Amino acid sequence: MARRWHIDYHSPSLGLTFEISRSLYQEQSRYQKIEIVQNPDFGRIMLLDGVLMLTASEEFVYHEMLSQPSLFTHPRPERVLIIGGGDCGTLKRVLMHPWVQSVVQVEIDEMVTRVSRQFFPELTSAAQDPRTELVFADGIAYMKEHQSEFDLILVDSTDPVGAAEGLFQRSFYQDCQQALKEDGILCIQSESPWIKALQPVIRSAHLALKELFPFVFPYQAAIQTYQAGLWLFQLASKKHSPHDPDCLKRISAFGNKFRYYNPEIHPACFALPEFVKELLS
Amino acid sequence: MARRWHIDYHSPSLGLTFEISRSLYQEQSRYQKIEIVQNPDFGRIMLLDGVLMLTASEEFVYHEMLSQPSLFTHPRPERVLIIGGGDCGTLKRVLMHPWVQSVVQVEIDEMVTRVSRQFFPELTSAAQDPRTELVFADGIAYMKEHQSEFDLILVDSTDPVGAAEGLFQRSFYQDCQQALKEDGILCIQSESPWIKALQPVIRSAHLALKELFPFVFPYQAAIQTYQAGLWLFQLASKKHSPHDPDCLKRISAFGNKFRYYNPEIHPACFALPEFVKELLS
Repeated sequence: MARRWHIDYHSPSLGLTFEISRSLYQEQSRYQKIEIVQNPDFGRIMLLDGVLMLTASEEFVYHEMLSQPSLFTHPRPERVLIIGGGDCGTLKRVLMHPWVQSVVQVEIDEMVTRVSRQFFPELTSAAQDPRTELVFADGIAYMKEHQSEFDLILVDSTDPVGAAEGLFQRSFYQDCQQALKEDGILCIQSESPWIKALQPVIRSAHLALKELFPFVFPYQAAIQTYQAGLWLFQLASKKHSPHDPDCLKRISAFGNKFRYYNPEIHPACFALPEFVKELLS
Repeated sequence: MARRWHIDYHSPSLGLTFEISRSLYQEQSRYQKIEIVQNPDFGRIMLLDGVLMLTASEEFVYHEMLSQPSLFTHPRPERVLIIGGGDCGTLKRVLMHPWVQSVVQVEIDEMVTRVSRQFFPELTSAAQDPRTELVFADGIAYMKEHQSEFDLILVDSTDPVGAAEGLFQRSFYQDCQQALKEDGILCIQSESPWIKALQPVIRSAHLALKELFPFVFPYQAAIQTYQAGLWLFQLASKKHSPHDPDCLKRISAFGNKFRYYNPEIHPACFALPEFVKELLS
């Protein structure tokens, strides 16, 4: 039998390629083509419009690193909002914190969550937690209707094309700023600095956040399956700093519950390679 | 015209794939097949037996990160030995340090350096420096003949198969230990912890180094084109620590001459993800 391989393109001439040992699901939602495939290295993989979103074997890197630095930077994040994140991998990591009292997750594509319930139950089981409220709506519209409500907003978006394009724009960040309480934190996934086509998006997001928030801390993680390995996030804060000594105390007191994030990674992730500092300066 | 693509396999079912817009060179040496190809994203690429060794666009990450942490950890590395490194990318970064008085580079395959002179002159120009001595010989045999000679040994090897297999073994590290002066440092490239087949090699190298050296500091960098992004190195030291405050002072005094490495990256690179700490414990 011929072996079937998929290419997750980083550019027209570059990509991650992997064998699809089994195709488990495929459907077109209102927003995108959703596929679940199996690979011997990664286990189950979700593709949206052919782009790799998550793998069972190493989703923990992205999801821990999107959520934990800001969850520990805020001294007591009780009300959390997730924009996107339909697979519930981020939600699961937010709910690990006992002081979180409510999490609203606003995902535009209900089918992503429905498919995840079937193929990634280890993630979607988090949605059973009574602190969770799932909203299936446009995150951009949702943000406009909320004021001073949240301690923490996490933007768990796809790449800046199609429905997610607005999640990389200044007007959206401004709405997030207004939906946060006076000491709130916004944290966004911010793509890879290696992808030339995305460098202007990363830079303009950074400049917009710096206009809107007194403190912006870009940080990085090495993500095996996301284009080009080196992945950026940006933590924009009204008051709290990830370098506050109390933050490190909270991480140590929490104990060893993660597979990537830990008390050493927290301060270290904010150190950026020189070429990334130049991109953002 | 049909487009030609190459796959750099990480496992039988996973790899980095890229278009070869032009094939520039191909020859079988005594040790391996050497190819130089062109890609729109990376520029020139060297493949050895089909495995990606370096790209013009981002070789700086690997070469800076193999060399600089130990070059700054040692207070005055005057005599440096490079095992492997025929493309001269590491050599170039070692020679950036004015206090280095001599660098011996022991590469088994002379053809790698000859081909690099033609296609990567921006790297091999370092070999013109009068402090450089190029030796084309087996690094394992070379090590057995030297005692207490070097301040720093950098092992810039290919993956642990074929000629390079011996460069991942305890007996080789022991010879390195003996070839170092009493405050010398050995630093090796140590593969990616994501590649399951290599995890035992990384772990056994770590345990062997810990038996032979009082201090072993594993560290990481995110390398776009090396299998799986997260790449490890191990710095084994007889006396000096990369966390010595004087080390950070030397980095700051040196000035901003790198594209990845900088005063923030130096301490941060030693922070390892939790799953890597577990692999090494």
